[in-house]
Amino acid sequence: MLKNWIRPARPEKDEVKARLKAAQEKLAVQQMQLKDKKLPVLVLIEGWGAAGKGSAIGRIIRNIDPRFFKVFSMAAPTAEERRKPFLTRYFEKIPEEGKFTFLDSGWMDEITKETLSGVLDGGDYAQRVDSVKRFERQLTDNGYLVLKFFFHISKKEQAGRINALMDNKDTAWRVSRGDVWQNSHYDRCLDVFDKYLEDTNTPSAPWYIVDAKNKRFAELQVMEALCTGIDTALHNGSLAVPLLQNVFPLVKMPKLREVELKSKTITDEEYKTKLKELQGKLGMLHNRLYRKRVPVVIVYEGWDAAGKGGNIKRLTGAMDPRGFEVHPIASPEPHEKARHYLWRFWTRLPKDGHIAIFDRSWYGRVMVERLEGFCTENDWQRAFYEMNEFEQELSNWGAVVLKFWVQIDKDTQLLRFTDRQNTPAKQWKLTDEDWRNREKWDVYEAAIDEMLEKTSTTYAPWHILESVDKKYARIKALEIVVEALEKALK
Amino acid sequence: MLKNWIRPARPEKDEVKARLKAAQEKLAVQQMQLKDKKLPVLVLIEGWGAAGKGSAIGRIIRNIDPRFFKVFSMAAPTAEERRKPFLTRYFEKIPEEGKFTFLDSGWMDEITKETLSGVLDGGDYAQRVDSVKRFERQLTDNGYLVLKFFFHISKKEQAGRINALMDNKDTAWRVSRGDVWQNSHYDRCLDVFDKYLEDTNTPSAPWYIVDAKNKRFAELQVMEALCTGIDTALHNGSLAVPLLQNVFPLVKMPKLREVELKSKTITDEEYKTKLKELQGKLGMLHNRLYRKRVPVVIVYEGWDAAGKGGNIKRLTGAMDPRGFEVHPIASPEPHEKARHYLWRFWTRLPKDGHIAIFDRSWYGRVMVERLEGFCTENDWQRAFYEMNEFEQELSNWGAVVLKFWVQIDKDTQLLRFTDRQNTPAKQWKLTDEDWRNREKWDVYEAAIDEMLEKTSTTYAPWHILESVDKKYARIKALEIVVEALEKALK
Repeated sequence: MLKNWIRPARPEKDEVKARLKAAQEKLAVQQMQLKDKKLPVLVLIEGWGAAGKGSAIGRIIRNIDPRFFKVFSMAAPTAEERRKPFLTRYFEKIPEEGKFTFLDSGWMDEITKETLSGVLDGGDYAQRVDSVKRFERQLTDNGYLVLKFFFHISKKEQAGRINALMDNKDTAWRVSRGDVWQNSHYDRCLDVFDKYLEDTNTPSAPWYIVDAKNKRFAELQVMEALCTGIDTALHNGSLAVPLLQNVFPLVKMPKLREVELKSKTITDEEYKTKLKELQGKLGMLHNRLYRKRVPVVIVYEGWDAAGKGGNIKRLTGAMDPRGFEVHPIASPEPHEKARHYLWRFWTRLPKDGHIAIFDRSWYGRVMVERLEGFCTENDWQRAFYEMNEFEQELSNWGAVVLKFWVQIDKDTQLLRFTDRQNTPAKQWKLTDEDWRNREKWDVYEAAIDEMLEKTSTTYAPWHILESVDKKYARIKALEIVVEALEKALK
Repeated sequence: MLKNWIRPARPEKDEVKARLKAAQEKLAVQQMQLKDKKLPVLVLIEGWGAAGKGSAIGRIIRNIDPRFFKVFSMAAPTAEERRKPFLTRYFEKIPEEGKFTFLDSGWMDEITKETLSGVLDGGDYAQRVDSVKRFERQLTDNGYLVLKFFFHISKKEQAGRINALMDNKDTAWRVSRGDVWQNSHYDRCLDVFDKYLEDTNTPSAPWYIVDAKNKRFAELQVMEALCTGIDTALHNGSLAVPLLQNVFPLVKMPKLREVELKSKTITDEEYKTKLKELQGKLGMLHNRLYRKRVPVVIVYEGWDAAGKGGNIKRLTGAMDPRGFEVHPIASPEPHEKARHYLWRFWTRLPKDGHIAIFDRSWYGRVMVERLEGFCTENDWQRAFYEMNEFEQELSNWGAVVLKFWVQIDKDTQLLRFTDRQNTPAKQWKLTDEDWRNREKWDVYEAAIDEMLEKTSTTYAPWHILESVDKKYARIKALEIVVEALEKALK
C-alpha cells in the first residue's frame, strides 16, 4: 500500500485552514452525537518515528471535551506485560461507549518492530496478523469505530526532523534509538510496514495513509477521515453484523437431558483417598507449571446450587495461593458494561505460570444475557464465534483452557434451594433471582445445549461434571485438571 | 519487639486441632457478618523468608468463599511501579467493603529490604515509617480492619527449610536469593525487623508476632487473632474516630465573598498575547519536567459553569498529550464507593514526569458528600486532615501540587446556565442537579470557605481563579502553573 501510495495534492494554506475549521466544528457536534448513540471510537495513529503522531493527537484532542477521551502512548511492552497475551494491553485500553481512545502507536508498531528485529519469524508474524484482524473485527462487530492512520514521511524528511529534535536538549529525549535505526534502515522498514498495512487492511477497519510532511495538512487529513468515519458509524449504528460460520474444531457434546446423573456417585472412603491423592498431584503440577510459565484458564458454569463453589474449593485447596486467582463473575459494573463484553475477562487473564479460575464467565453472553434480553439476538448469535476466537487466542498464547459445566437435575436443585432456605448460614446464597431462573429451566437448558454444541473446541473443551453427588463431581474435576496439566507439561 | 518476644507455649496437637476447628467455624460465620456490616479486612503477612507465609495464607483462605477475598503476593516493585509514590501499589490493593485482602509480604518487606541494602538512609527510612503509619491509620479510621502478622523463625530453622526446598527442583524456585542472604545475615536482619516492628506498632494496627516453627500452630495463631480482630472491629463499627488537630503549614485564604471579581478582566488583545507566550513557556517546561521526572498534580474545583473545562483546555493545549492526563471525576462507581474514598485518586496518580489534572477531585468529600449526607459528619471532618496528609505524601514524593478554585458569583452562574439552556450544543452540560446545587449556594459557600481555610498548605496551596472574565482566569492559571514549574525545575 505504501509503495503504491500517491501523495495527495496539498491544498493552499487558506483552504487547509478553512477545512480544518469546518472539521473542528463538525467534530464538536459529533462528540455529542456519539455520546448519545453510545458509539465508542478507537483511533490508532501509527507511522514513522518523528512523523508527528503525538503532536497531531495533541491538536486533535483540543476539539474534544476531556471527559470524552483518553490518550495512551504505547511503549514497548514491559516484562510484566509480556507475561500476558500480546493483545491484552491493547484490549485493556479500548474506550467506553460514547468516548474516544487515541493510541500513539500500537499493535502495528509492536509487530513490525519485532519483525524487523527478528523476534517474530514468519509463522509468528502470520499468527499475530490473524490475531489483530480478529481483534479489530471483534471491536467493529460489537459497535466500535476503529480508525487506523499511518503517518508517512520520506527518508529525507525523517532525517531532518530527527536532527532538529536532537539539537535541542529539551526535545532530544523524544528521539528514540529506534527512530535513528529506522532512518538508517528506511527501505527495509518500508517493506515491513507496507506488508503489514496490506495484511491488515480490512473493510471494517481500513488504513488511512496520511501525508505527514506538513503538520497542518496531516491534522486535516486525520480530522476529515475522523468526521467521515463517525458519520458512517452513526448511520450504521443499528445494522446487524454478518454471522460468520462457526468453523472451529468442535468436540461432540451430549444433550444435557441425556446426561446420566444418578449413577455417578462415589463412596466417602473412595472420595477421601482420591481427593488426597489428586490434590497432592495437583499441588506438584502447580509448582511445575509455575516454573515452566504455563498459564491456565478454568471456567466454571452450571445451574444455581449445582456445587460450583465447593468444587472450586477442592481445586484451589491444593494450590499455592500466590499462583492462582478465583474470579467470581457477577453482573457487570457500569464501566464494564460500557465496553466490549469480553473486556472484563481480558483484564482478568492470568500471568503465565498462573491459574485463573472463573466462577461464571463470558458464557453469560449466551445464557443470561441472551435470555434476559441484555443483548440483541445478533449479539449473542455472534458470540459463539467470538468466544471460540477468544479461547483460541488463549490457546495460541500457550494456555491450558478447561471449561466445566456443573450439571444437576431440577429436583436436586429444589432440594438444595430448600436446604439453603432452611439453613441460616447458607441463606445468603439463595436469592429471588435464583427462584426466577429456576422457572425458566427449560429455555435455559435449550440455550446451554446450544452453547455446549457450538463452543466445545478441541483446544478449549467443555466437560460435564455430574454433580448430584457433589463428591463425584469434585473428583472428576480434579482428574480432568490433573490430566490436562500433565499433558501440557510433558 | 522481636528481641523481647517470648515464644508462646505450644499446645498439644489435639488442642491445636480442636481450637483450629473452632476458629474455622467462627470465621465462616464472621465472613457473613462482615459482609453484612461492610467491614473490609486487610491482612498483612510479613516475616522471614521460608517462614511459611504463603502456605499459611493458603490454608486460611480455604475457610473463606472465593467471592470474599483476594491474595496478592508482592514482589519487589517493578520499574513502572517505582515511578509512583511507593504506597500506590499497596493502596491499589486494599479490599472492598465486606471483603478480605491477604498480602503475602508488603510494605514492611519493601522498606526493610531497602534499609538493609542501603537504598534508604536514616531520613528516608523515617519518612517511610511516617507514611506507613499514616496509611494504616487512614485505613483504620475509615473503617478498615488492618491485621499485621510477623512470621518468626530462628536462624537454624530457616536454614533447614531453605535446604529442604532447594533439594527439590519443583520447590527450589520458592527460595529467593534474598532468603539465602537473609539467613547468612540473620542478626543484622533481626535488628532491622525489630526496629521496624517497634516503629510501626500502633494501637489501631498492632503487630502480632507468630511463632512459625510449627505450621499448624502458626495457622492457629493467625486464625485466632483474625477472629478476635474481626469481633472487635464488628463491635466498634459505629464508633466515631478522634479528630486529629490540623497541624499543617497553612496558607491564609480569603473568604469567597471577599474575593473581588468584577475588576479582574483582561482585554482580548492582551489575552491573545499572553496566552501564546504562556503556552509556549508551558510547552517547554512540560518537556523539561518529563526529562527531570517531576510529577505534577493539578486540581480544579469550582462552581458549576465557572469555566473549569475551558480553563483546563488552555493548559493542556500547550502540552504533549503523551505527558498528561485529564481525569474528569464524577460520582464514584460501585467498586470505587466500596473502598476508601481516596482509592480512586491513588489509582489515578501520574507517573513521575507526567501531569495529572483532576476536573473535580477528592475535595468532593467536604463539599457534595458532606452536604448531601453521603458520608458521616465524623467522616468529612476527618477528611480535611486526611487530604492534607494525602497531598503531603505527594509532595514528599516530589510532586508539584496545585489546586484551583474557579470562582464566579451567583448572578454570573445564572447567566451561564440560561445560556447553556438556550444553546443546543451546550445543553448536555446543564443538568437538573446543577439547578438543585444552585439553590444551596450559601451552604456550599460556607463549606468551601472551610475547605479553603483548612486545606491550603504551603506544599499544596489553593489558588482562586476569578472567572467572571474566563479569559482572565485562564491567564492566571497559566501564570501560576508556569511559575510553580519554573520553581520546581530550578
